[in-house]
Amino acid sequence: MTVEWVAPASSPAVNGQRQKNWESLVAAKREELQKSIPNAWRLTGKQLKLFSQKGINLVAADVCRKSGILSESELDITENYTAQELLQKLAAGEVSALETTTGFCKRASIAQQLLSCLTETFFPKALERANFLDDYLRREGRVYGPLHGLPVSVKDSFDIEGVLSTVGYVSFLEHSPATSNSAMINMLLDLGAVLYVKTNIPQTMMTGDSENNIFGRTLNPRDTNLTAGGSSGGEGALVAFRGSILGVGTDIAGSIRIPALCCGVYGFKPTTNRIPFGGQTSGVTTGFPGLIPSAGPLSHNLKDIQMFMSTILDAHPWKYDETAIGAPWHRLEIQKETHKLIIGILPEDPAFPLHPPIRRTLENAITSLRNHGHTIVHLLSDENRSVAYGNRLAFQYLTYGPHVDHIATSGEPLVTSVAKFSNPMFTGPFPVAQDLSLEKKIVALHEARQNYAKTWRKTWLENKLHVILAPGSQNTAVPHDTYGWPPYTVMWNLLDFPACIIPFGIASKHLDPEPMKVQDNVQPSYDPHAVHGLPCALQVIAPKFQDEQCLLAAEIIDKDIRNN
Amino acid sequence: MTVEWVAPASSPAVNGQRQKNWESLVAAKREELQKSIPNAWRLTGKQLKLFSQKGINLVAADVCRKSGILSESELDITENYTAQELLQKLAAGEVSALETTTGFCKRASIAQQLLSCLTETFFPKALERANFLDDYLRREGRVYGPLHGLPVSVKDSFDIEGVLSTVGYVSFLEHSPATSNSAMINMLLDLGAVLYVKTNIPQTMMTGDSENNIFGRTLNPRDTNLTAGGSSGGEGALVAFRGSILGVGTDIAGSIRIPALCCGVYGFKPTTNRIPFGGQTSGVTTGFPGLIPSAGPLSHNLKDIQMFMSTILDAHPWKYDETAIGAPWHRLEIQKETHKLIIGILPEDPAFPLHPPIRRTLENAITSLRNHGHTIVHLLSDENRSVAYGNRLAFQYLTYGPHVDHIATSGEPLVTSVAKFSNPMFTGPFPVAQDLSLEKKIVALHEARQNYAKTWRKTWLENKLHVILAPGSQNTAVPHDTYGWPPYTVMWNLLDFPACIIPFGIASKHLDPEPMKVQDNVQPSYDPHAVHGLPCALQVIAPKFQDEQCLLAAEIIDKDIRNN
Repeated sequence: MTVEWVAPASSPAVNGQRQKNWESLVAAKREELQKSIPNAWRLTGKQLKLFSQKGINLVAADVCRKSGILSESELDITENYTAQELLQKLAAGEVSALETTTGFCKRASIAQQLLSCLTETFFPKALERANFLDDYLRREGRVYGPLHGLPVSVKDSFDIEGVLSTVGYVSFLEHSPATSNSAMINMLLDLGAVLYVKTNIPQTMMTGDSENNIFGRTLNPRDTNLTAGGSSGGEGALVAFRGSILGVGTDIAGSIRIPALCCGVYGFKPTTNRIPFGGQTSGVTTGFPGLIPSAGPLSHNLKDIQMFMSTILDAHPWKYDETAIGAPWHRLEIQKETHKLIIGILPEDPAFPLHPPIRRTLENAITSLRNHGHTIVHLLSDENRSVAYGNRLAFQYLTYGPHVDHIATSGEPLVTSVAKFSNPMFTGPFPVAQDLSLEKKIVALHEARQNYAKTWRKTWLENKLHVILAPGSQNTAVPHDTYGWPPYTVMWNLLDFPACIIPFGIASKHLDPEPMKVQDNVQPSYDPHAVHGLPCALQVIAPKFQDEQCLLAAEIIDKDIRNN
Repeated sequence: MTVEWVAPASSPAVNGQRQKNWESLVAAKREELQKSIPNAWRLTGKQLKLFSQKGINLVAADVCRKSGILSESELDITENYTAQELLQKLAAGEVSALETTTGFCKRASIAQQLLSCLTETFFPKALERANFLDDYLRREGRVYGPLHGLPVSVKDSFDIEGVLSTVGYVSFLEHSPATSNSAMINMLLDLGAVLYVKTNIPQTMMTGDSENNIFGRTLNPRDTNLTAGGSSGGEGALVAFRGSILGVGTDIAGSIRIPALCCGVYGFKPTTNRIPFGGQTSGVTTGFPGLIPSAGPLSHNLKDIQMFMSTILDAHPWKYDETAIGAPWHRLEIQKETHKLIIGILPEDPAFPLHPPIRRTLENAITSLRNHGHTIVHLLSDENRSVAYGNRLAFQYLTYGPHVDHIATSGEPLVTSVAKFSNPMFTGPFPVAQDLSLEKKIVALHEARQNYAKTWRKTWLENKLHVILAPGSQNTAVPHDTYGWPPYTVMWNLLDFPACIIPFGIASKHLDPEPMKVQDNVQPSYDPHAVHGLPCALQVIAPKFQDEQCLLAAEIIDKDIRNN
């Protein structure tokens, strides 16, 4: 699958009728979405006003409790457990699927009213399924599957029978609802999960700002002045708000990891095709050599990420999806408590300088890890495996293939972050001559990518690395439409290396008081006041297919950086 | 990697100088190869004459014993053990690496004199390494690696430092020797194996007859009038002759399985990129979407095939090859003795009718398997997953990409099997319009392939299959240059399904006395006299990445079809 992120044309000439048409389509869709939220789950006018203050931290504001919409028990269920703990309670009958589902449906409804993080809801169906699962457990005396009763949210691109997949394009509002489920959806249902919402994304699914002309802009629940990230921005916001305990996103350049790091949750991009990707809606043409998107989880902790991976892979994804690789989840026989890691530190690329809070928290993590006995290897800079070169190669891959314009067809304008067309080409030339024939370009791009992968393989071996530790981004969440190009995530998509985001540390205007102005017109600048209090994040990366190693190391790192 | 199997032009106009040039290059290379065989390992003129009778069965003729070249002990080592047993003896010091290597070097030398199955030998280096390994074991008290002292033969395409890789092209004689090892070679060396020869292949590596203008034609050791198969034909012949106990070939359309079934040995084509393929020489352009070749083993039994797979995969191929998938060998926890299989039988395609001995032995196998309690599912014909359609799609993939002509450059003529340009297009149209732009063709081919894979996945699920049982070919080994197009192997390359050849049954002019004339000018006819006494073969296939399942089922099937 390749993505045609070409320079967008200026907004197409829109005649009055066409404009009216798309606007009325959108208005109808928005009304439908709004109506899908029962009155009892709506905030009052007063609450809406209170919690819609610009720049509010909705996680700290304890909105759900104050709203009075959730029962004490629903608050407890949605706030105080990991997904694994909740599954145990569901299996033991200590909580019902109905109550659990109701709690998360209510919470997602509240999130939607304040954050615009949803695209589709199917609450009645979710409650019906929860009832079915409760009956099943009572009747059969056993769970329906390992995810029995767990509400799981999914990105809008996943197809669910009877539900639209618009993926941010107004023109897709004229499509029919999906007539079949994505492979992942069928797996989740067979495993006993409850589906209740699909979540918001950017127009084109290719920016770090989840805004589109249908569903508007998803806001960051930790500071609504800031981006929730993209393209799985609705997932990031919903999970951080605890409107979801486990979300499934997709990632071709950072689309799971960017929302995770912006919203302060965990996110994992697996090696492609380990988690089934098949049967989704997208605006792109598949089958071209290039970067391939990967489906993966967002959650509140690493245990739930691991649970998601092992549960899905143990259930034979290849039976659901001919593109899914049939390798089971491999249990590593390692004593986590005593295992010492060799951790390579990705050198900061001068073209993409880290914001002071990111550099500070990364250094803090390194110090902690060294104190815990792990070996830290500061990798030297090497142009053959540099961030900037990998980014230019990734960008060339993302833009050389077929392109279908799904924006102009409806007459909708480009949203700001798409119109900006941020890209890494300010750092140097295209790796492969742009005027080559398609045949020659495919071969040359492949060769360049193989060489990049070879250099990284050798670096791994020479330094005997278990994993690499890197920033997930130069920055925390930043003001809307300034996220720019994602250099520290997309390079791992080019390599198809699994990569995990760990939230760690907090931006502080006191500790890092100096602003940092970035002059390249692509990357965000550091504004100590704008991002004060926002979470920072680390990224843990392992070689292709070493997903198990990646998550094992992430777990060790996650623990040791917090115990000084 | 794609293969440009385009219709060859008629033999290029050759001027006198150019012809002289290629012929003298070839003469020098042949002399070099001949000289690499020590006098003491050469057959006498009388022996040569005796064992070069047309149509002789050299396996039955007991050539090595009669030659007097091997000691009793060397005969024992090379004839009476599996690779696993030999490894145990080597590790216990019951046999030395030197004696083992000497035995197989002698045997390979004899094979070469009668079968033209080698391209390169490096006997002195092999003996030196064997000495090193013997010293190592004595000095350290432990083996160098799990393949300690085991001679392993490899197809010519594997690069070995200091050795040429001509892959059947005269023009490649002007290349320099390889300056580095293929990933597989580095792994074999690190694991303790001994390399001693590379083996013969066809010009273009894309026919079922291993003939080229440098090394001549590899003959079938069970009947020298018949083909040894291709493209890993030298491996097939050498292993069947017991000049090798374990060989490594490659397979993009059947190139491991065809020699295995022609020569009556076991051969396994794994899912691509599980066994490292990187760093080989080929005449083709890599990086184009298409069929991808797979490296895999040929041997005398399934235990050794499994040993090869688990040993290589346990040694982390991804550390040697950035294209190798880092999934370990998965041990299936199944009681082989009591495990009952659900076995789908591939329907015979009317376009590729089975020769009577193949049909008979397949039916015998099915009867035995049913008698042993396995469930047999005769799959219905379905055009969407038919042999013929899959073959046309595979052929279109193999021919649409970039093509470099390495034949015309030297002035050498096409060999007969290449000039024939056998292909499956007599069965129907190209699946994708041939006049599409490259961009559109890539997308359309991908879609067609996905649909083919989807239909097969659904067939697997609907019938709850463990594996499919199919012929490896319509035929046994056949007279030279008549093998034609390989319909029953290449379809599994298109799907990237692992597939294993099991030799089973014998062609008999008594049991199947009627000739069968095939009229399509592509496929071989059945001549009861020509193939009398030749081995038949079955093929066991599992879905992509279910290599472990494939070999487990193959082992169960291999046992049960022989115990009635």
